[in-house]
Amino acid sequence: MAKIVIKFGGTSVGSTDRIVAAAKIIKKKINKGNTIIVVVSAMAGKTNELIQQSLKVSKNFNSRELDVLLASGEQVTSALLAGALEDIGIKARSYMGWQIPILTDGKHNNSRIINMRVEKINKFILNKGVAIIPGFQGISKEAEITTIGRGGSDATAVAIAKVFNTDECEIYTDVEGVYSADPKQFSKAKKIKKISYEEMLEMSSLGAKVMQSSAVQTAMIYDLPLHVRSSFSSAEGTKIFGSENIDYSKTISGVTYSKDEAKITLLGVQDKPGVAADIFEPLGKNSINVDMVIQNISPDGKTTDITFTIRRSDLIKTIKTIKSNKKNVKFQSISSDKKVSKISIIGAGMITTPGVTYKMFRALAKEKVNILAISTSEIKISVIIKESDTSKAVKKLHTVFNLD
Amino acid sequence: MAKIVIKFGGTSVGSTDRIVAAAKIIKKKINKGNTIIVVVSAMAGKTNELIQQSLKVSKNFNSRELDVLLASGEQVTSALLAGALEDIGIKARSYMGWQIPILTDGKHNNSRIINMRVEKINKFILNKGVAIIPGFQGISKEAEITTIGRGGSDATAVAIAKVFNTDECEIYTDVEGVYSADPKQFSKAKKIKKISYEEMLEMSSLGAKVMQSSAVQTAMIYDLPLHVRSSFSSAEGTKIFGSENIDYSKTISGVTYSKDEAKITLLGVQDKPGVAADIFEPLGKNSINVDMVIQNISPDGKTTDITFTIRRSDLIKTIKTIKSNKKNVKFQSISSDKKVSKISIIGAGMITTPGVTYKMFRALAKEKVNILAISTSEIKISVIIKESDTSKAVKKLHTVFNLD
Repeated sequence: MAKIVIKFGGTSVGSTDRIVAAAKIIKKKINKGNTIIVVVSAMAGKTNELIQQSLKVSKNFNSRELDVLLASGEQVTSALLAGALEDIGIKARSYMGWQIPILTDGKHNNSRIINMRVEKINKFILNKGVAIIPGFQGISKEAEITTIGRGGSDATAVAIAKVFNTDECEIYTDVEGVYSADPKQFSKAKKIKKISYEEMLEMSSLGAKVMQSSAVQTAMIYDLPLHVRSSFSSAEGTKIFGSENIDYSKTISGVTYSKDEAKITLLGVQDKPGVAADIFEPLGKNSINVDMVIQNISPDGKTTDITFTIRRSDLIKTIKTIKSNKKNVKFQSISSDKKVSKISIIGAGMITTPGVTYKMFRALAKEKVNILAISTSEIKISVIIKESDTSKAVKKLHTVFNLD
Repeated sequence: MAKIVIKFGGTSVGSTDRIVAAAKIIKKKINKGNTIIVVVSAMAGKTNELIQQSLKVSKNFNSRELDVLLASGEQVTSALLAGALEDIGIKARSYMGWQIPILTDGKHNNSRIINMRVEKINKFILNKGVAIIPGFQGISKEAEITTIGRGGSDATAVAIAKVFNTDECEIYTDVEGVYSADPKQFSKAKKIKKISYEEMLEMSSLGAKVMQSSAVQTAMIYDLPLHVRSSFSSAEGTKIFGSENIDYSKTISGVTYSKDEAKITLLGVQDKPGVAADIFEPLGKNSINVDMVIQNISPDGKTTDITFTIRRSDLIKTIKTIKSNKKNVKFQSISSDKKVSKISIIGAGMITTPGVTYKMFRALAKEKVNILAISTSEIKISVIIKESDTSKAVKKLHTVFNLD
């Protein structure tokens, strides 16, 4: 007997069959005497379809009306799920963002939830009703429909878990949880049973497919446990907690990779204070995110080489920006490489385990994988390597850190 | 410079191209200095698609949730049209039923609009903004979403014309107006330029395809002129007025037919007071609508024959109901014919023109069309004939009453 928030993602309500299946999952929990609030996404593909329609009507579709348009997607799923529950004898009712209301800061297309009323829903769920809330939507003080950004249904679920003070928050998706490596690419990848918020956030390439980062951040702030699992299976998924609740028998929780990288090196840069700022300021102004930066020690005290990584899709724009900035930053030549990938090992356990970096580098060296750049944080070590070495590197690290 | 309500039906906003076309129609009117409120239907086919989805989830879909589900259709069109207008430089804003609010009597799936607020929208349209209102939806006193029945966007448009005291109410659809006969079947059918509310309502088979009857009734009560026209052409359509505003050079405005009829005859019915009530009461209780009734004069003073017409789809149910009621109503035998159709001539001019009935019967006799039953009202004469005579009869009447 617990108070549970259950969130169903787009594929988990992607067809009328899936909606009926979701209703059955809820029924089981109700029959065990639990109190349930459900948050739903739009049916898979629906939000993209609506965005496509908006673009056919206007290349620069009005942001207020985009929110009105997109909020319809979750409205449809909410009503269908409520109807499916009523059909199998479970009292259920959908509550639109404006009916609750869920109050946001009023920013169109990218709002933040700031408050919500609980009376109506509390009364209903305490009488054994299932309240169904469309994710992703809320209203401003002026009663305008606002949405909270793509993947925002996760944020709605976490906000509801907080405001309604629930015991559990289950995020149903189409994968069984978070894995120690990409399970589609590496057969030895294992499902992670427990993971900390921090690790989940660092698992950018693995975790982000499963759950929206800002929702994980919010859960971390309020210390709300999450359970990410599949609506296509009854298996337990991955539980996300504060790191103090996790027993780290393994130093590393997962190995991730991203082939979305490119590397740029500026050779013979004049070595003087402020030169890095002079290089990177124009990039920031052009919305180019610089990831890793390595500056070699200046051998002659006059010039140095600076290497940094960016998103591969920003490569041309980046080179153009640097060249047009040549009067502020002197350098001899520029070289770039877009056949690189980023491999990361993530684990809260590494804070208390010395030698992880060394172990990683040794393992890669044994596979003759050349490291082009390195960056480290408290719970993550990332290296840039040749793209063709990706699979070999991930496999090796997965084995070396006892994840197989 | 007028205040105009413009309503676009499903086909007039049936695609993003049609929505852009609708925006251009509005822009022309705005550029002439008019003040505009727009009412939109769901995109053609959308409401049926949502109903189909609901039926896949539940054969007996919850009526409250059906309203939440269906209201999403008009929400999508409203947002897309507002975005299309903004794109061509026209200030526009969608207002959902709950934002205005449009208050209904609270009955799910078949509500009636009882009131709406005007302040917000008046302020916006007087500042040259186009207000876009989703048809078909409103909210109850308890802030529940309610819809006002299929085709309800016409009713929304008429209610708005009344409450906002507009000068005109244009109903855009996919036909150019109301015709003197079905233009798809009879090449000589002509568009009717002006028609009275009463005639429009009697034009069941022609008029109902163009505009929802209850909306015409409401317009009649408040004496609101309507203009039914096509969004696919710039031609003037059919204007609907009170009959006092129409100059009747023609006695008859149109000839309609319906092949949705069946005829039943009870032979040798005991002729005593109350027998008709005994026959028809059980039919009414079974939701069978009886249309025409003919009772022959009783030749022997003891038994008579009673003929009546019903919807063809009710035929089996009707015979079953009558047979099971045989202990209350004695008759010798029952016969039925489902190969019949109903032909009607409609015209407010017939009130002041004698001999219309005679002229109709004479014309049908000349074509050797046998009349199986007759019913008359002030502005309509209907006859039941053999279904195979339908085309011949409509053509002849269209010619005889100078409609070609």
